[in-house]
Amino acid sequence: MSEMLGKGLNTADSDAMNTTPYAAVVTPNAANIEVNAPLLRNITSPADVKAMPAVQLKELCREIRTTLLNYGHAHGGHIGSNLGMVEATVALHRVFDSPHDRIVFDVSHQSYVHKMLTGRALSYLEPQHFNDVTGFTNPAESEHDQFVLGHTGTSISLACGIAKTRNAEISATGTSSIGNVVAVIGDGSLSSGVAFEGLNNAAEQGGNLIVIFNDNEMSIAGDFGGMYGPLARLRASGGTAQPNIFNAFGLDYRYVEAGNDVDALIKAFEEVRDIDHPVVVHIHTLKGAGYEGKTNTVDAAHQQLQHTTATDKAEGIPSTNNVLHDEPWHSDHCNLSDHEPHEGQCEASHWQNPDASLGKPEDPRKYYGKMAMAALEPRFASEPGLVVISPATPGSNGITHEFRERAGAHYVDTGITESHAVAFAAGIARAGGTPVVATTASFFQRAYDQFFQEMSLNRSRVTVLDFLGGLSGSDNTHSGAYDLAMFANIPQVTMLVPTSGRDFLDDLAWATLPANAENAPTGSVVIRVPGEGVLAAERDATLRPITGAQTAASQPVDSVFSDMLSWRINQSGSQVAILGLGNTYPLAERAAAALQSEHGITATVIDPRQCTSLDTDALESLRKNHALVITLEDGQLEGGWGEKVTSYYANHWQHSESALNPRVLNFGATKEFTDRVPLAELNKRYGLTVDNIVSAVNR
Amino acid sequence: MSEMLGKGLNTADSDAMNTTPYAAVVTPNAANIEVNAPLLRNITSPADVKAMPAVQLKELCREIRTTLLNYGHAHGGHIGSNLGMVEATVALHRVFDSPHDRIVFDVSHQSYVHKMLTGRALSYLEPQHFNDVTGFTNPAESEHDQFVLGHTGTSISLACGIAKTRNAEISATGTSSIGNVVAVIGDGSLSSGVAFEGLNNAAEQGGNLIVIFNDNEMSIAGDFGGMYGPLARLRASGGTAQPNIFNAFGLDYRYVEAGNDVDALIKAFEEVRDIDHPVVVHIHTLKGAGYEGKTNTVDAAHQQLQHTTATDKAEGIPSTNNVLHDEPWHSDHCNLSDHEPHEGQCEASHWQNPDASLGKPEDPRKYYGKMAMAALEPRFASEPGLVVISPATPGSNGITHEFRERAGAHYVDTGITESHAVAFAAGIARAGGTPVVATTASFFQRAYDQFFQEMSLNRSRVTVLDFLGGLSGSDNTHSGAYDLAMFANIPQVTMLVPTSGRDFLDDLAWATLPANAENAPTGSVVIRVPGEGVLAAERDATLRPITGAQTAASQPVDSVFSDMLSWRINQSGSQVAILGLGNTYPLAERAAAALQSEHGITATVIDPRQCTSLDTDALESLRKNHALVITLEDGQLEGGWGEKVTSYYANHWQHSESALNPRVLNFGATKEFTDRVPLAELNKRYGLTVDNIVSAVNR
Repeated sequence: MSEMLGKGLNTADSDAMNTTPYAAVVTPNAANIEVNAPLLRNITSPADVKAMPAVQLKELCREIRTTLLNYGHAHGGHIGSNLGMVEATVALHRVFDSPHDRIVFDVSHQSYVHKMLTGRALSYLEPQHFNDVTGFTNPAESEHDQFVLGHTGTSISLACGIAKTRNAEISATGTSSIGNVVAVIGDGSLSSGVAFEGLNNAAEQGGNLIVIFNDNEMSIAGDFGGMYGPLARLRASGGTAQPNIFNAFGLDYRYVEAGNDVDALIKAFEEVRDIDHPVVVHIHTLKGAGYEGKTNTVDAAHQQLQHTTATDKAEGIPSTNNVLHDEPWHSDHCNLSDHEPHEGQCEASHWQNPDASLGKPEDPRKYYGKMAMAALEPRFASEPGLVVISPATPGSNGITHEFRERAGAHYVDTGITESHAVAFAAGIARAGGTPVVATTASFFQRAYDQFFQEMSLNRSRVTVLDFLGGLSGSDNTHSGAYDLAMFANIPQVTMLVPTSGRDFLDDLAWATLPANAENAPTGSVVIRVPGEGVLAAERDATLRPITGAQTAASQPVDSVFSDMLSWRINQSGSQVAILGLGNTYPLAERAAAALQSEHGITATVIDPRQCTSLDTDALESLRKNHALVITLEDGQLEGGWGEKVTSYYANHWQHSESALNPRVLNFGATKEFTDRVPLAELNKRYGLTVDNIVSAVNR
Repeated sequence: MSEMLGKGLNTADSDAMNTTPYAAVVTPNAANIEVNAPLLRNITSPADVKAMPAVQLKELCREIRTTLLNYGHAHGGHIGSNLGMVEATVALHRVFDSPHDRIVFDVSHQSYVHKMLTGRALSYLEPQHFNDVTGFTNPAESEHDQFVLGHTGTSISLACGIAKTRNAEISATGTSSIGNVVAVIGDGSLSSGVAFEGLNNAAEQGGNLIVIFNDNEMSIAGDFGGMYGPLARLRASGGTAQPNIFNAFGLDYRYVEAGNDVDALIKAFEEVRDIDHPVVVHIHTLKGAGYEGKTNTVDAAHQQLQHTTATDKAEGIPSTNNVLHDEPWHSDHCNLSDHEPHEGQCEASHWQNPDASLGKPEDPRKYYGKMAMAALEPRFASEPGLVVISPATPGSNGITHEFRERAGAHYVDTGITESHAVAFAAGIARAGGTPVVATTASFFQRAYDQFFQEMSLNRSRVTVLDFLGGLSGSDNTHSGAYDLAMFANIPQVTMLVPTSGRDFLDDLAWATLPANAENAPTGSVVIRVPGEGVLAAERDATLRPITGAQTAASQPVDSVFSDMLSWRINQSGSQVAILGLGNTYPLAERAAAALQSEHGITATVIDPRQCTSLDTDALESLRKNHALVITLEDGQLEGGWGEKVTSYYANHWQHSESALNPRVLNFGATKEFTDRVPLAELNKRYGLTVDNIVSAVNR
């Protein structure tokens, strides 16, 4: 799906451009190049967009597009969806009166243009200001931003709430400080259940509410779902064909084919401004519009846009292969540092890494994700029921395009539907299949009820691959610091926290054993995919365990699985025991080494391997000669794992002289949201450092 | 909406009946009356349904309906949805071949008839066997049951999973142990987001999948949502009108107007049996069909059914006022002991209490729910933005029909949409309104991500009324034992656990203060509605606090709110401190009284009032002369509250001679699912008894 930026692009003429030729901004020094964008530079608020002569709007769009492209190469970001939304965002601010009119951007990664037009243009124009703004709307930045949002599908519900309050004020007083309420949502986001809930409630509520449906025919890795066929027919018919899903939810509907034509959009938006009932304005846009692709000029893109929307469509060529597919920001570069929000198409232009990051080693999500897929793939031939399920986030988790092609029916992209994905997996398990559901920790929050009900209560043999769990430098909407509190407190869930690639593969092999296999788990297994701490230790020989603990290459994968839940005591010592859960295990090793070298203490070092049950034998064994037990975890302490260890000793107090009741100290994260704080800084903030642990022992 | 059981009912002739006249089974001794149902009694498996002469099927339906009515009066249950599904269930087992064909009942409370036909008829016929089966499908009971389900909307996703595995087996081996896959879902359930996610994935997947859409025009309190208008037009057109929402999801579609005509249903099901692609069979049924209403015979109901489906419809009378609305199982009897699942219409016949329960005191949900609504209602006139939101579960939480009528736009039923409801509330808060979202604790699991993102991360001033939180005798799918681990570990959430009606009102008043009011909370507030433990203490003078703690009537509601988060030390003692959270606070009082009388210990007694932050002043004050601190909570210990107290002392160890490091003992629930275990038994199991606490002190 998607992909209309056709072959004509590379034939374009760059002479016509009055902006920096795009070829220049792809150089490695791109970050140092300032874009010449005189119109954009002068925009300090939406009033400037309104005041601009109409004839200049196309030029403004060209400047914005150039700015986005430059920014993408230099800084990285969700460039594709923003490129598609350039004209629509200009039109929104031309027609509507933010902040009196309220614009809610779904998932909000497509708000860069909005930010440029609401006083933040310099944050995209000048490298020294690139980090002044976040990648999502943020009320702390601007009165024009409604919410911090990084998960899909809630904009309609949020807009309903704003509109509801406006309606109530008008009923009570005849007036309101709030005018039009506009939700902007993409076709990828629309697969989220909550978006349908919102659509279903919008018509029921009534009153002014404008849903801009940004249809770029792309989700992260293609649009998946039965509704996209009828949507394509809707587009092909110019918005007249039935069934029309928006009508089916009782909503009024308009269609704008020329979704990258600023004049057409202005006209359409003017027609619905101040409308007295909910309406969907379906705009057909081109994600990644202007990306250099096989051309090297922004102007060529603009020419192509005109061509595509005006000519190709008329010629009945709605969709051809997208040349962006082979570009450097395609799947292999949709990654990691991103905490990939849900919308858009990764393969094409969903997330762009800065050029400077190219060629760097793979991040843990991709590294271990590929490792897992490589382990599962050979089994497909003999295990028809083995299925990998991704709720629309494959690329960033190492589920490559190539793997998916080879996997065929063994891979399912369910769209952005974590709830469905987990219930679907439970159905597969009920039928005797072996489902593996993979996505990012914070997105799994969407499936919390299905984890409880369909998965755990039913003891469904579902394997969950939990990516980006634990601490990271993530933004606040995608942090994995809460995953353990979410998963590990659900009854009947087993959550594994491997500390090496080898353990990870062992855990995956065990979790996906056939139900009738010896030692197979009796229910669901969540595997937290290792993060930076583990991967760094695996890559750097100087960080390897001093205790003889196993690492990736040291041993073959287990084939017996007789003892997957007992803790691994890698070094037996005295006085102090350090229990390092998951990603903090390498830190436990290093702290033990420091205690040895600096204080002559041989600490006991334990890799608990899982966090859903306590190994009471191990805990009891520590009573003999350990006065202090230290727990380390790279997630929130409250509701987390260390507290369970503390509570164990507190509630199993020994009154004999010979058995100690060790003190327990817990190290982990504070209950808070953090926004793009580097991991090293978080570790320091939470005391997850060798120095801090050593000094705690000596207090 | 709904309601087709017309005025003709009370004119029917009971002479034609060969079953017990319905008048007989409404007597108080109903539970002792066995139904004469010779056909049903002889059915031991679906094979018997298939073997039955076709002419007997209507008689079988009549017997089943009589049995359901008797069972409803004697035992209580989700009678309404089952009455509507009598013919459809008989037809399903006549046409399909369970368990080779797999039937997944959404939310599964409409599975009583299915249970009768799959070897469990005696559990509905004979009072001594009424408790042999659960109220939901349960694989532990029968190979014909696919899942334990009590939350709505997941049947399509689950069925997709089963079908996917069958498809894979057929691809690999040419055959499968699984035949047709059938999902049965109601129109109320269809408002759940996950149901739309399932629909969207069904067509994408392809292969045999049959969705029986049981459209009885009712949810729990009416169908709410824009899709219900087009659905009504679809019915009125005999299934031909567009927009057709199922077509919009890419699905094939059939319509059966006569959804209570067993022959018509058999014909329709036979037509789709072994179909090679997903199809929706939309059947128009009558919820509560056969309920005595204004008549008194089952036969009259049957006559009416025939009339309604054959004649009234032809006369263009699709929907009249439902006489069931005024019946004794209407809203005031939709309650409490139920843990009300999501589907069906409470007001009409969603949940029926046994006759024996009539006239008993209100349960805590209704009691405190009504109290909250009574406190909010007078504010509506002056606070246009104050809105109570219920995701389709008003009646059981004391949000009465009468209140809703009076509340007008201040009350919104969003349909069965917890995710939308919470995001909608965040939108209201963003616009300056005051949203109060109310539903049952376990249903709030559906909104976990919205609690994290839209609510907490955005510091939206949303008030959440958390009903049935904590321990209860609930079934396993509706237990509130996990609510604290869910809410209280989310950053920036304040969770209050009032211990009296007076505190509850204080908490509600504080949470809903205008944003600019002095001492207003800066973000979201979850209030756990008090449960049995607190209500019992409020009702029974002998259980009132000995320490002088406040109860409902003792003081006016706070108007200062200067100190809502500090713990309340109701009795200052020594040696032992007992911290009783929420519903366990009365137990703390009683244990302290026992320690005083039996051991002469004056314990410190603390009501923490909230569970999201520790009152470190209070904790530090205990160091002076308390060697033991006891925490009580009526929910899961893991991820819960007591562990936070334990960890506080462990991590704030005092090295001075004068400050004790008290031992902490935590009492609360094990991490497990429990199914209909009486509260008193759970309390005993978890050591939440006076005797156990007193003996722990003396160990």
